[in-house]
Amino acid sequence: MNALKEHPVFGFVDWCLRGIGQVVFQNNPVSGLIILGALFFNSPIYGAIAVFGVVISTATAVLLQADKGLIRDGLFGFNGALVALALIAFTSEDFHYGAVPSVYLTVYIAFGSAMTAMVFTSLANLLGPHRVAPLTMPFVLVGWLFLFAVLKFHSIDAGPLAKPVSPTQYDGTVQYTLATWYKGIGNAIGQIFFQDNWISGYLIVLGIAVNSRVSAIMALLGANVAAFVAVVYGAPEGAISDGLFGYNAALTAIALGGFFLVLTPASVLYTLFGVVVSTWLWASVAIFLEPIGMPVLTSTFVIVTWLMLIGVNGFAALVPVAPADAVTPEANRRRYLKALREG
Amino acid sequence: MNALKEHPVFGFVDWCLRGIGQVVFQNNPVSGLIILGALFFNSPIYGAIAVFGVVISTATAVLLQADKGLIRDGLFGFNGALVALALIAFTSEDFHYGAVPSVYLTVYIAFGSAMTAMVFTSLANLLGPHRVAPLTMPFVLVGWLFLFAVLKFHSIDAGPLAKPVSPTQYDGTVQYTLATWYKGIGNAIGQIFFQDNWISGYLIVLGIAVNSRVSAIMALLGANVAAFVAVVYGAPEGAISDGLFGYNAALTAIALGGFFLVLTPASVLYTLFGVVVSTWLWASVAIFLEPIGMPVLTSTFVIVTWLMLIGVNGFAALVPVAPADAVTPEANRRRYLKALREG
Amino acid sequence: MNALKEHPVFGFVDWCLRGIGQVVFQNNPVSGLIILGALFFNSPIYGAIAVFGVVISTATAVLLQADKGLIRDGLFGFNGALVALALIAFTSEDFHYGAVPSVYLTVYIAFGSAMTAMVFTSLANLLGPHRVAPLTMPFVLVGWLFLFAVLKFHSIDAGPLAKPVSPTQYDGTVQYTLATWYKGIGNAIGQIFFQDNWISGYLIVLGIAVNSRVSAIMALLGANVAAFVAVVYGAPEGAISDGLFGYNAALTAIALGGFFLVLTPASVLYTLFGVVVSTWLWASVAIFLEPIGMPVLTSTFVIVTWLMLIGVNGFAALVPVAPADAVTPEANRRRYLKALREG
Repeated sequence: MNALKEHPVFGFVDWCLRGIGQVVFQNNPVSGLIILGALFFNSPIYGAIAVFGVVISTATAVLLQADKGLIRDGLFGFNGALVALALIAFTSEDFHYGAVPSVYLTVYIAFGSAMTAMVFTSLANLLGPHRVAPLTMPFVLVGWLFLFAVLKFHSIDAGPLAKPVSPTQYDGTVQYTLATWYKGIGNAIGQIFFQDNWISGYLIVLGIAVNSRVSAIMALLGANVAAFVAVVYGAPEGAISDGLFGYNAALTAIALGGFFLVLTPASVLYTLFGVVVSTWLWASVAIFLEPIGMPVLTSTFVIVTWLMLIGVNGFAALVPVAPADAVTPEANRRRYLKALREG
Repeated sequence: MNALKEHPVFGFVDWCLRGIGQVVFQNNPVSGLIILGALFFNSPIYGAIAVFGVVISTATAVLLQADKGLIRDGLFGFNGALVALALIAFTSEDFHYGAVPSVYLTVYIAFGSAMTAMVFTSLANLLGPHRVAPLTMPFVLVGWLFLFAVLKFHSIDAGPLAKPVSPTQYDGTVQYTLATWYKGIGNAIGQIFFQDNWISGYLIVLGIAVNSRVSAIMALLGANVAAFVAVVYGAPEGAISDGLFGYNAALTAIALGGFFLVLTPASVLYTLFGVVVSTWLWASVAIFLEPIGMPVLTSTFVIVTWLMLIGVNGFAALVPVAPADAVTPEANRRRYLKALREG
Repeated sequence: MNALKEHPVFGFVDWCLRGIGQVVFQNNPVSGLIILGALFFNSPIYGAIAVFGVVISTATAVLLQADKGLIRDGLFGFNGALVALALIAFTSEDFHYGAVPSVYLTVYIAFGSAMTAMVFTSLANLLGPHRVAPLTMPFVLVGWLFLFAVLKFHSIDAGPLAKPVSPTQYDGTVQYTLATWYKGIGNAIGQIFFQDNWISGYLIVLGIAVNSRVSAIMALLGANVAAFVAVVYGAPEGAISDGLFGYNAALTAIALGGFFLVLTPASVLYTLFGVVVSTWLWASVAIFLEPIGMPVLTSTFVIVTWLMLIGVNGFAALVPVAPADAVTPEANRRRYLKALREG
């Protein structure tokens, strides 16, 4: 694998595939490839635009001569891919399939994706002393900033948002069914990549599992707990089955569940706490943003995970993993147990 | 007192009482007890929920094995108590007395109060290098995030906010009277704990005075200057007599007036400046938040105090006190004078 | 020049004139004097209030015994001048000429301008480790906070904003003409100081050129690229000819174009990227703030420049200049080339 990473041409392909995987914390080109397949399965437009975004932001980092280790781990790519997906998703008449962008919008997306490379570096610099990663905040910031303006330029024809962005936009009287659950779980994973397709969601879980079974389980656990909490608290059926309550919760589960905290009984409880809070707070941020018609993106995941991780070294009950050392939950735990044994 | 702090059972009670006192910067269980009495005097519901909140957040810190010194000083408790009070205050039909929460809301409040322990640690970590305390920001952040969502869950029956949250919601033609003043001052102190009861407000001042007479004077000074400024600038009578202009100003006065700055002629002027600005900016933040129906909470106090303290070591005219060394204005000044004498 | 800076009376005048110049990064009293002339040329009210603001905030820094080097470089003055200008501009019935403030508003402005000295020091403290300057963020923060409240105090008679604050408030059907361009460029520079007068704008460019020709060229380049991008993306004619798309872009161009980055082919491309993004994001922030009627001020410039500079030491393709070492693009580049030669 390392030989591939160093190759002048295939290397770049490898970094970009890892970039797709890094959206869900998987530094593995095979994960990236499977996830990309899940996107193409739902819509070739989304598949292609994800490639466009990851290539632009990774190439920007290369041109600016950013840290090679970070580039090779795909860390400059995942926010670029997400910005590109978001800008297509929220300017297309059909959220489900997306639409081929105009030249104007394509240039605009390229600038947005490139911008994530700069914002990633700035946030990494700000957060460095606190040993916390930028997560998808570069995507959230650039996504919000670029989405507002796009709605008002004549040359970019953005209709009204086709996709509900808040629980208040769903019918509160629809009954929960079995499909609410299994489609809701799949869609929750899919929504991480703006895919309104529950089968794509399960394919993405497969892509995660290739690299880390614990992370795959955490993603499913996060989406399930979110659906459960949303049902208990009487959330609208449509928002649950569309996966809107679950996509932030799933990301929080992956991040806290073994990736940035060593997997222990205490960290599992801490993760469950974070998942429940992420579920509620998706609704909260959605309602806050609704008057200006802005989607939540993955802001809730970032806010909850940051608030629960930045001070975590002050909690002796938990074992944090610095971003630079975080590999997979399995490897993190093995290293921790080894260090324990060696005293 | 220290023996009590170490006792396995009474220790926890002591930490929680200090937690109540810490809302107004008083690390003293007797202060906490008197303030709790002031809450029960107004409404047993508010008294009980304050106890619930402070217990949950302090216990969370104990379970997560946070720093013992911080726990024992009540620093994990005050934000938890405030979140619990806010969630009752703004979901009850009667703001004045509050309402007994449902099981759903109780679980929700428990998560919110627990979350403040994590946010406190994260903010302390972020602010540590700048020698500034998190103040009530954990409460403000968690309060806002949890209040938004609560308004939309079917299982939590939140009516429209019973309490005006902005000066624009009051009648601008009502005349000022003597009661505007003495009730307004009492209510301003009461509003720090969401108590719409001016007698409770004066009881809280008594609770402060037990530990520090300077802090008690500062609280009254802050509320008085705020009422004066609001009258001069023609603010609505109702907002003044409800204490809304004054509660942030009173907190700013306690924080800057001897607690985080050694009491000197220069720091008294600096405090007065902060009090005036807090008064105006309460109105500002209220008007900003009004379209989404969100209350200001103590955000203005935190913003003004942070902006005036984070850079204060750059001003040779003032003598800052690091959060870890801040005891009472009296003790801070004694230590400073002693250090001066000893050169 | 240094003798003047040390003189007990003329020194203060010198610091204040530099404060006016520092709005556009020119630490030069002659630049400040010419710019002040440009303001008086448009409206003696604006000229006088700029003097009032810069004197108040510089005097506040002196009274608080802030760092003498910073005071003498005018760094405590520019945000104070901008706050004073903004509070007149957005409370006057006639945005173009402004109106003489009442006693109430004058006191209010004095507090706002004084507050910028504290916010500047706090932001400098927060940003210090990241070697990035506060830019005009003290003005933006204090400006927003003070503008909200002013609209609701009875004693300050603020009409509805006379000036459109968002592209959506302009007629989208007006055709572009030659005047759109040459007036738009002048107005863009003028809008940095809230001057709706294109001749004043060009006089300000002259004031910049006295100290740095590269900065003057960058200001014009920024405004031109912004106008070009706005036309290509079909922005309303009125917003372009009023200079609204360009004033943030011009500031970004000056900041990135040689001042905080050594002028090289790579940094020119980086600057152009920032200018294009600033243009789009002005529209974005304007649309975000429109529901609450708040102007963008120079927030877009600060956000884009911070996001592009905070992490810039992670990009080997660019050569950052620390705020303390930034003089003029010409001097920065000379020092860099000298260091290269001396290896």
